[in-house]
Amino acid sequence: MYTYSYLLDFTKQVFGKMGCSEKDAEIIADVFLAAELRGHASHGMIRIKDYYELWKAGRINVKPDVKVVHETPSTAVVDGDNAVGMVAARRSMEIAIEKAVTAGTGWVATNNSNHFGIAGYYSMMALRKDMIGICLTNANPLVAPTFSISRMMGTNPIAVAIPSLKQPPFVADFATTPIARGKLAVSEKKGEKVPFGYVQDKSGNPSNDPAILKSGGSMLTLGGDRIHGSHKGYCLSAIVDIFSAVFSGANFGPFVPPSVAYLPVLDKKVGKGTGHFFGAMRIDAFQPAGEFKSKMDEWIETFRSAIPAAGQEKVLIPGDPERECEERIMREGISLVPAIEKDLRDIASAIGVPFG
Amino acid sequence: MYTYSYLLDFTKQVFGKMGCSEKDAEIIADVFLAAELRGHASHGMIRIKDYYELWKAGRINVKPDVKVVHETPSTAVVDGDNAVGMVAARRSMEIAIEKAVTAGTGWVATNNSNHFGIAGYYSMMALRKDMIGICLTNANPLVAPTFSISRMMGTNPIAVAIPSLKQPPFVADFATTPIARGKLAVSEKKGEKVPFGYVQDKSGNPSNDPAILKSGGSMLTLGGDRIHGSHKGYCLSAIVDIFSAVFSGANFGPFVPPSVAYLPVLDKKVGKGTGHFFGAMRIDAFQPAGEFKSKMDEWIETFRSAIPAAGQEKVLIPGDPERECEERIMREGISLVPAIEKDLRDIASAIGVPFG
Repeated sequence: MYTYSYLLDFTKQVFGKMGCSEKDAEIIADVFLAAELRGHASHGMIRIKDYYELWKAGRINVKPDVKVVHETPSTAVVDGDNAVGMVAARRSMEIAIEKAVTAGTGWVATNNSNHFGIAGYYSMMALRKDMIGICLTNANPLVAPTFSISRMMGTNPIAVAIPSLKQPPFVADFATTPIARGKLAVSEKKGEKVPFGYVQDKSGNPSNDPAILKSGGSMLTLGGDRIHGSHKGYCLSAIVDIFSAVFSGANFGPFVPPSVAYLPVLDKKVGKGTGHFFGAMRIDAFQPAGEFKSKMDEWIETFRSAIPAAGQEKVLIPGDPERECEERIMREGISLVPAIEKDLRDIASAIGVPFG
Repeated sequence: MYTYSYLLDFTKQVFGKMGCSEKDAEIIADVFLAAELRGHASHGMIRIKDYYELWKAGRINVKPDVKVVHETPSTAVVDGDNAVGMVAARRSMEIAIEKAVTAGTGWVATNNSNHFGIAGYYSMMALRKDMIGICLTNANPLVAPTFSISRMMGTNPIAVAIPSLKQPPFVADFATTPIARGKLAVSEKKGEKVPFGYVQDKSGNPSNDPAILKSGGSMLTLGGDRIHGSHKGYCLSAIVDIFSAVFSGANFGPFVPPSVAYLPVLDKKVGKGTGHFFGAMRIDAFQPAGEFKSKMDEWIETFRSAIPAAGQEKVLIPGDPERECEERIMREGISLVPAIEKDLRDIASAIGVPFG
């Protein structure tokens, strides 16, 4: 078991040794650890190896010049300069917030970036400023549109954070697929089947095999099948892709570059790197801040008082599970499975920082 | 079979007789007929009776003063003055577009409105201006959050329209439930069961009875059950509700006023009327307009070329089914079932306009 601050410091040191500035290494570590705290370990310490390997392969820029390349009073396009995704994303969200201060809202589309960890992190940056935060990103293509077998989209998440007063904030952060890809890997390792509705085989037949992606299968969009609204999940995933990539000039859909070094750089490019999209909306651009936040309290209290279904304990508000997880982990610490510990030890040794 | 222009003119006359200005009656008729054309007959001529009854009951304002009550360079809050929803919504989207002209983007939250027809209509207004259009609205509570049996949300749709160059535009317009409510009514009339995953009974057990709402049942969010991601559909529906109602100061969740006169006015209010949310984003706030639109062509062509699954003919782009429907209906005309014809004939006779 590791403490939050031990792994935070370790991660910061690793990225510092790779050549990141102290400030950038701090940002990167903060996002990795936020994923662990919020129970999204699939985007936490397990991923450090992917970034390390991309760096070793010279496929990621640790001295980036992240900059605005186009703007209006409420918008900007940011070139991430092939930065570690967290660095490009954090700066982009800061710009969205700056725009919102003067224009009421700020919207930033970022190209030439890389995998940025959890989308919720950036949306939550807005909360401290009494703003609503929004974050979208495209991702490696694993998901098929409705009626198709072609992997055209990522699990393209949507994150929206909305401030409240006495209640904890509303924070939704979810993939536009029934499950995140990491869950398939977990089921596969355990030798378990997955429910139908998550994946299909290479011909488009329903499958419950979590390893089906290795034999030409694909993930399904939220809804699972046409009868249950998979075309709506396809719309959502497509909207995230277009906002992240066509707005920014990044690669869209099947052309999103791999976020791991063991997959080769794609031959065809339709833009620059991976794309993200960020939004910040001042709550007092709509309602007096105090009124808005106390209305959000009322919204949250109303939904919390919904009657649970038979066999259910309580009704949750988006953000509740992650917050409960965060409290538990800050109390109990973060446990890493031996395979991840070994990866981190190998990296630590190669790069010259202590671990464990 | 009726022609588009016959029903357009009829609808305009009906609302004119109710006291709407000629311009407002034209807007209302335009939206009703857009629903018919796009294959969403559940939001078309069948609904005229609901508006007529609300008007007879004095529950809707045909001489509204729709006005901005708060604004920043990129945002506004609009008071719909209890207008027929189409009138408040169309004006609100115009304001969003005006804001976008100067600020790059425009965002309008509207309170004190009513049912506004199809969300896609307003999002598509942006296309002619080389803008992306967004429209959200809350609606009568019929949908339960994950783990709950309480009807807390509407089918809360999301509409996003994105311009392209040679390809038809990308237009997504979908409820955040697996199906629209109208589909339940159709199945019920046909005496058919519905697939599991659409509704649950009053205790929260899975149900395939399309009439279950009458005995305390509720609709489910996109995803259907927790295993298949219903909590993500709940997040989406909640986000639409908060943007539409908390941003605007309208009634949220279970307090959204009924859109039909046969349901009584609710005792408790937490805001003013029904709420909507509109967005307009100038594409050249992000990329040169020509480049953006030709990149959208490339996006659309890429997704159109996705390989169909076994037994499927082709992969669709959001907006394709509605466009095909529109072409067919403009060619063949609009057919109305006898029950709707009778309703319209009764209204026509009562109000003094010719029909049929």
